[in-house]
Amino acid sequence: MIDKKEKKAFQDYYPDDHSHCYGCGRLNSQGLKIKSYWDGDETVAHFTPRPHHTAMPGYVYGGLIASLIDCHGTGSAAAAAYRREGRAMDSLPPLRYVTASLKVDYLQPTPIDVTLELRGRIKQVEGRKVVVESTLSANGSVCARGEVVAVKLPDNMLPGAKTG
Amino acid sequence: MIDKKEKKAFQDYYPDDHSHCYGCGRLNSQGLKIKSYWDGDETVAHFTPRPHHTAMPGYVYGGLIASLIDCHGTGSAAAAAYRREGRAMDSLPPLRYVTASLKVDYLQPTPIDVTLELRGRIKQVEGRKVVVESTLSANGSVCARGEVVAVKLPDNMLPGAKTG
Repeated sequence: MIDKKEKKAFQDYYPDDHSHCYGCGRLNSQGLKIKSYWDGDETVAHFTPRPHHTAMPGYVYGGLIASLIDCHGTGSAAAAAYRREGRAMDSLPPLRYVTASLKVDYLQPTPIDVTLELRGRIKQVEGRKVVVESTLSANGSVCARGEVVAVKLPDNMLPGAKTG
Repeated sequence: MIDKKEKKAFQDYYPDDHSHCYGCGRLNSQGLKIKSYWDGDETVAHFTPRPHHTAMPGYVYGGLIASLIDCHGTGSAAAAAYRREGRAMDSLPPLRYVTASLKVDYLQPTPIDVTLELRGRIKQVEGRKVVVESTLSANGSVCARGEVVAVKLPDNMLPGAKTG
């Protein structure tokens, strides 16, 4: 079992310059602050939708589901890359991944009044690319499946790099 | 050319019960209120990201892009279905579509400080299914491409229907 009290989330290791994401940045005060963790070989995140995250009354907005799968996917990709290199997530240089493509299949309406569980599986780690498959469940029932193809951020977009 | 002053958006025709979507509901006070229109055989929507919709500083969060493509897609699907039936969008019964699957390819970073343009093309209208391809552009350059497979909402989820 994961122990969130003992562990920092993947996203908590992101450098400050990369912590402003609306979905998962710890420094975005208006954002969703998604937090992902290892649970064995899977990655897990929990999120409780807010009342305004509605599609139709009672159900979660599909764009929120896509956002959760997206940020859980890129976070899981970074964690998998560190693990492949046998490195701690606070070691340098930082590894950050961005989304090249996102696919979501909505299997059934997702109730808005419960905490949702995301579970990610690392499908592929190859070169700069990591593919993460995720499920989103409510009350133990899978409501959506997603796949993120994440690519390592080019070095010139990492903190401290010269840009422009 | 479209004339937004003269025309209601697709989403403005949704019944009240279906106007609470965080992405496009006119009755969701905290939502994005995406508005889509016909422009010939294409559909178009414009959206100006807010400062907190950031991925990395200066760029738009991918989950927002997915949300825009999602709601523009389902709105376009409904409009295409009315058009196929030769019906005005305020005629009854209402036609509402939900997302069965969403795919987004992120082609390049999307700048956050400009108004984004979504353009949708109706790829397929068959039975209860409508497939909509969209591009999202900034400064005339395509930053993302998306596809929404939308399905007609079952009659028992339409306004006034008995549920549960």
